[in-house]
Amino acid sequence: MPVDNRFYAPDGALTLGTWADIAAAGLDSAYRDRPAPGVGSASRAAPGDVCFFEGDPRGAGDISPSAAGCFVTADAAPHLPETVPGLVTGQPRLAHGVAASRLIALRSICGQEGLIHPGARVHPGARLAPGVVLGAGAAVGEGTEVGAGSVIGPGVQIGRNGRIGHHVSIICALIGDHVSLSSGVRIGEAGFGVVPGEDGLADQPHFGRVILQDGVSIGANTTVDRGAFDDTVIGERTKIDNLCQIAHNVRIGRDTVIAAFGGISGSVEIGDGVRLGGRAGVADHVKIGNAASLAAAAGVFRDVPDGETWGGTPSRPMRQYMREQAWLSKQVRDRGKK
Amino acid sequence: MPVDNRFYAPDGALTLGTWADIAAAGLDSAYRDRPAPGVGSASRAAPGDVCFFEGDPRGAGDISPSAAGCFVTADAAPHLPETVPGLVTGQPRLAHGVAASRLIALRSICGQEGLIHPGARVHPGARLAPGVVLGAGAAVGEGTEVGAGSVIGPGVQIGRNGRIGHHVSIICALIGDHVSLSSGVRIGEAGFGVVPGEDGLADQPHFGRVILQDGVSIGANTTVDRGAFDDTVIGERTKIDNLCQIAHNVRIGRDTVIAAFGGISGSVEIGDGVRLGGRAGVADHVKIGNAASLAAAAGVFRDVPDGETWGGTPSRPMRQYMREQAWLSKQVRDRGKK
Amino acid sequence: MPVDNRFYAPDGALTLGTWADIAAAGLDSAYRDRPAPGVGSASRAAPGDVCFFEGDPRGAGDISPSAAGCFVTADAAPHLPETVPGLVTGQPRLAHGVAASRLIALRSICGQEGLIHPGARVHPGARLAPGVVLGAGAAVGEGTEVGAGSVIGPGVQIGRNGRIGHHVSIICALIGDHVSLSSGVRIGEAGFGVVPGEDGLADQPHFGRVILQDGVSIGANTTVDRGAFDDTVIGERTKIDNLCQIAHNVRIGRDTVIAAFGGISGSVEIGDGVRLGGRAGVADHVKIGNAASLAAAAGVFRDVPDGETWGGTPSRPMRQYMREQAWLSKQVRDRGKK
Repeated sequence: MPVDNRFYAPDGALTLGTWADIAAAGLDSAYRDRPAPGVGSASRAAPGDVCFFEGDPRGAGDISPSAAGCFVTADAAPHLPETVPGLVTGQPRLAHGVAASRLIALRSICGQEGLIHPGARVHPGARLAPGVVLGAGAAVGEGTEVGAGSVIGPGVQIGRNGRIGHHVSIICALIGDHVSLSSGVRIGEAGFGVVPGEDGLADQPHFGRVILQDGVSIGANTTVDRGAFDDTVIGERTKIDNLCQIAHNVRIGRDTVIAAFGGISGSVEIGDGVRLGGRAGVADHVKIGNAASLAAAAGVFRDVPDGETWGGTPSRPMRQYMREQAWLSKQVRDRGKK
Repeated sequence: MPVDNRFYAPDGALTLGTWADIAAAGLDSAYRDRPAPGVGSASRAAPGDVCFFEGDPRGAGDISPSAAGCFVTADAAPHLPETVPGLVTGQPRLAHGVAASRLIALRSICGQEGLIHPGARVHPGARLAPGVVLGAGAAVGEGTEVGAGSVIGPGVQIGRNGRIGHHVSIICALIGDHVSLSSGVRIGEAGFGVVPGEDGLADQPHFGRVILQDGVSIGANTTVDRGAFDDTVIGERTKIDNLCQIAHNVRIGRDTVIAAFGGISGSVEIGDGVRLGGRAGVADHVKIGNAASLAAAAGVFRDVPDGETWGGTPSRPMRQYMREQAWLSKQVRDRGKK
Repeated sequence: MPVDNRFYAPDGALTLGTWADIAAAGLDSAYRDRPAPGVGSASRAAPGDVCFFEGDPRGAGDISPSAAGCFVTADAAPHLPETVPGLVTGQPRLAHGVAASRLIALRSICGQEGLIHPGARVHPGARLAPGVVLGAGAAVGEGTEVGAGSVIGPGVQIGRNGRIGHHVSIICALIGDHVSLSSGVRIGEAGFGVVPGEDGLADQPHFGRVILQDGVSIGANTTVDRGAFDDTVIGERTKIDNLCQIAHNVRIGRDTVIAAFGGISGSVEIGDGVRLGGRAGVADHVKIGNAASLAAAAGVFRDVPDGETWGGTPSRPMRQYMREQAWLSKQVRDRGKK
């Protein structure tokens, strides 16, 4: 996905040559002038996006043929789709991240004079509490209230009739109408991505966004991270309790309910009308089907089909889990009697 | 309970007729002028309170006979106590919530000019850090310190010798003496209540308060939600660690200790001198007796008697839980040897 | 450890006599003038430190012989090392805490005029967002950005090229270079220590610091408490996700990764290159060896050797845990077939 210029500032008109130079990566000179303003994942890169590939060299053939270019090791480069030029380097993921961090800046509120940037737009029917901070290009819609000290970062769009609590921070996000964010909510921070660097661990940069659709409610001190390259999306009227964690690239459907301490790991997909009990956790890349339910304290490591109820850690169908617990208790009780 | 006018502003002198009109609910005209300034739960509604009832129609007979009126379905209306007129509608809970939201506003700090409202009262012996925000009618007692940027909402009362950290927000709450709230604590946000609406899920409004008695301490980024109609109460000298969640209508006794990530669901009652290990969770409406202990990571779904120690998920007496774990380990170890 | 005067202000030149008088503790008059400006734990007290001892009286012989003095019961006093005078009292821990709280004050930002103290030092190459609060003696290094409304307490030192998010609070801490703290992070709050007082529970005061070494990253709304007497230390390039809790006196090595909801209890030691899955918890005083791994949702109550992978609650080697789960599932499935 091309980066959203409301939130990110590419360093001029980027070409593949720019990327190759800053990363000292090998590139067929025929492609140096190809425009490359964006970043994407290997599987979903769109035209203009630069991605990276690591793993079995032959897998390089499966990356998105739309990608503008791909950081890749020398042995994988020959397997890339014909349409995708390689940026050849020893550590593709690390090189991609370091280059992207240097070429595409997060728009920052640091250095801004005054709490409200003159380029922010606040509808006359919106109401701000004392101390609210608005960045350049931020917009707050009619009927929306923003609590004391909350920070609406550069380019963030908030719809109508929203209720934003105190000390909320929102960056890199598009917020619909009738959205409620309780105090202390964190929207749009970088996701948690760790990559081995030359001198130990390094953070992987994030260039995506958070999309909160109409009617979403989020409880106090909950965190919703922005996507790595794509978006983190929470669907209409989904309700999330206090102290939950929604990681990068998560996609949640409509009318889903997540109780306190819910933990949704990176790239998880959750359907419509799902119910998560308190402290339910879902491991990365797992899919939870429509109208499924997870019991309180469930720890889910496999996909849950539509309409099923799972529990336990690692989670299994609730009926099986309950029978196991009952059988185990009975064995020990019976032995105690003998 | 009648709403506390320090935190909520009823839209004029409410009568049952006002409620019926705004919700398009059926009401015997004889009761239109009955004063109805408050809201309450079906079981605890006090004089002046409007409540709602859903469920088996005959159960309507058990609601509080003091209620000023009750949203109810047509088939349950005949079962109401004689003293309680029905407000007849198809979806009582939803209609009650929508009407209450329109008729009773949460007093807001939005629109306030300046950080400190001229109607706030700060004892000369209190000390405020830079950026503190005080709403109308807020009060801070002698010897209390309030950290940078903290928000004390309209009507909130804080006693003497308190220690309030940075970026704390407190709304709809009464705070005793010698109370310590670490940075990032959230007191008084709306509880988590989801109700099926006409077009999907909707939030249930909350009209209660939070009461923190003398000597309570609460750790960083912990959240304590206000009650739906009644209060969330934390008793004297109870100590709560970082990142805990205390839901709406919870009642906790004195000298109780809750370690990090403790999760106390709605309407739970916890006694005096209770110990909760880290990450212990208690399901809604459960009662934990005096001097009981919950092991770290316990997930409690049933009442725990006074003085007992429980563990595991679902929790059971600790001795039983430990024997089960030991027996299970032994079975597998022994089989490994053969 | 002597208290760090950047964060704490002893009430003049403290001597053992000062401590004895304020606590009404017995002290051999020969020692009244001995300088006693600091506080320490019994096992690690350094010269100048006052500590306390409770427990089996003969154990008093094992306290640090460097301590300037030790609060102790009358029956344990004769067992103290010859070099350590006793401050004799009925409740040593409580008396020590109450006296220390009165004699050694936490430097506060309360009462400060203006957001930025004239005695704070901000490198010209640092960038501050609107609303940042800096205490006396706070320092922010070259290339570091500080987000809107964040609070850098008195004496806090932040190195170069750091990224501090919005609404972050940092007190009693020394922060290295290239450190990233996401929005809502809480560094340096008092740890969770509860001590039985005369009229119920009381909070134990904390006099230590937090040390974040170069390259540390910490996710949104995570909390890191300062040590009781010593420091809480997080090593180089260790990466911590959102909503984690790092308690007082914890020591974490380099290049360690802690996923969301990680809970590290007081005085835990974690090595280099360790991996903690989401919601892993470690009980107090436990040691996790270098390159060890804890599965998601693990609850660890015993030391984990170098390089091993553990899971479950209570945690055991992962292979044993997985075999137990599989065996249990099989018993119940097989019985269902009969």
